[in-house]
Amino acid sequence: MFSVRMRAAQGRRHEEGGRHISGAERIIPYDKVKQTTAGMLERAFTHSRGQADFISITIEAVQPSTIQQVPLLSVYPSSFLTAEEGHKAAEHALVAAGVTSVSAKQGILSLLSLADSMRGAMLLCAVTGQRFDHTESRGIRVSRMDIENENALIDRLIKLGIHNLHVQEALVLASKVAAAPGVVAELCWSDDPEYTTGYVASASGYIRIPHCKPLGNPVGGRIFFVDPAADITLLEHYLQFQPVLVKL
Amino acid sequence: MFSVRMRAAQGRRHEEGGRHISGAERIIPYDKVKQTTAGMLERAFTHSRGQADFISITIEAVQPSTIQQVPLLSVYPSSFLTAEEGHKAAEHALVAAGVTSVSAKQGILSLLSLADSMRGAMLLCAVTGQRFDHTESRGIRVSRMDIENENALIDRLIKLGIHNLHVQEALVLASKVAAAPGVVAELCWSDDPEYTTGYVASASGYIRIPHCKPLGNPVGGRIFFVDPAADITLLEHYLQFQPVLVKL
Repeated sequence: MFSVRMRAAQGRRHEEGGRHISGAERIIPYDKVKQTTAGMLERAFTHSRGQADFISITIEAVQPSTIQQVPLLSVYPSSFLTAEEGHKAAEHALVAAGVTSVSAKQGILSLLSLADSMRGAMLLCAVTGQRFDHTESRGIRVSRMDIENENALIDRLIKLGIHNLHVQEALVLASKVAAAPGVVAELCWSDDPEYTTGYVASASGYIRIPHCKPLGNPVGGRIFFVDPAADITLLEHYLQFQPVLVKL
Repeated sequence: MFSVRMRAAQGRRHEEGGRHISGAERIIPYDKVKQTTAGMLERAFTHSRGQADFISITIEAVQPSTIQQVPLLSVYPSSFLTAEEGHKAAEHALVAAGVTSVSAKQGILSLLSLADSMRGAMLLCAVTGQRFDHTESRGIRVSRMDIENENALIDRLIKLGIHNLHVQEALVLASKVAAAPGVVAELCWSDDPEYTTGYVASASGYIRIPHCKPLGNPVGGRIFFVDPAADITLLEHYLQFQPVLVKL
């Protein structure tokens, strides 16, 4: 199996302060590597956040025995008309998952106050809302995950009436994150200006929140709310390096 | 224009001690990026040095105004039956280019004593043979160069009866290197076990030496012989980062 990862930036490379345009993650057999790489390149060059002028594609063999399997989260719909209602719904869902109200509010505020999207996620204390990671505007990038049976996932999302690439990828990422050691819940909304939907995810499920920001807004991000007793080094290693296949 | 670069390694990534399998460099217009990337991927997976299990492809926009143009070197044939004769011919050519006999012998010995191929080149003093760079077994990788008119180069090499991808790429690289500030001459033979040819290049031309190692030997490398008065930092920057288009 091969882990294939893409990241694209504008202006200069990410490490030199370039603006993050898009990213993608797959774990696939050898015979899909070429097609997947071509698709990622196409995507980097045609993203609605802008024209990429730095693209990095990494292809790395993964020993199947090192791949951890985690269950796909169940998807729950929710329906709110405005971003304000969406933020309230997100706060309630986070509190229901075990995040304090203070920390949930802090997380929403952190996403709302971003000047531009981060490539990765912030880790916040699920009790106090204090930031745990030291990656500043870079964030912790969740990497090396995929769905075991992509067609079955697509079928399921089509039946739920919510299939698009955003949901598909977010659900795989959220399933890896919900199984992480020490993560209580995740809050995310997209940085795609044409896509306003966000979600709250935890081990008990994935709650879609259709309106988290105004249409046309290119700023989004991810917050992982973390148990204060968690081993942050272990958690960051799992999120970035543990190969994970999500099972339906 | 886009700089497209590929490097492939076996075992693990280069930075973590993986064995270098292959690399490639192009500077091309946008409409050739996809095809070029696909070709590099194919090449990384089918190299005669072995199966790659780490491949990195980087695609980066290059402002045309920053691209330096350098002339293509003239090609001179030479014909020797054995690797020993080839090494003697290389020594003579290096001395003719301005390298001392001591330094030329040291360069040949350095390539012969490599345990495995390096990804980049060693910089040796053209007078004493002392090593100038501090990159140990990594070497200085020459990057960001291409030929302005590939078809014309291929035609010329076909007319000379020496066209293959090795010669084509080596001649472009050697033309960039020969124009570098402080480089007196270059010595190289391939790490491809199926390709025994090497060359000595300098501003006055590119001398092909058909036999530099036994067939089946997977160890090769590059030495740049450098004027002791050269600014090594400036030279390393030019070799690695200055975009160069070679003109016929």
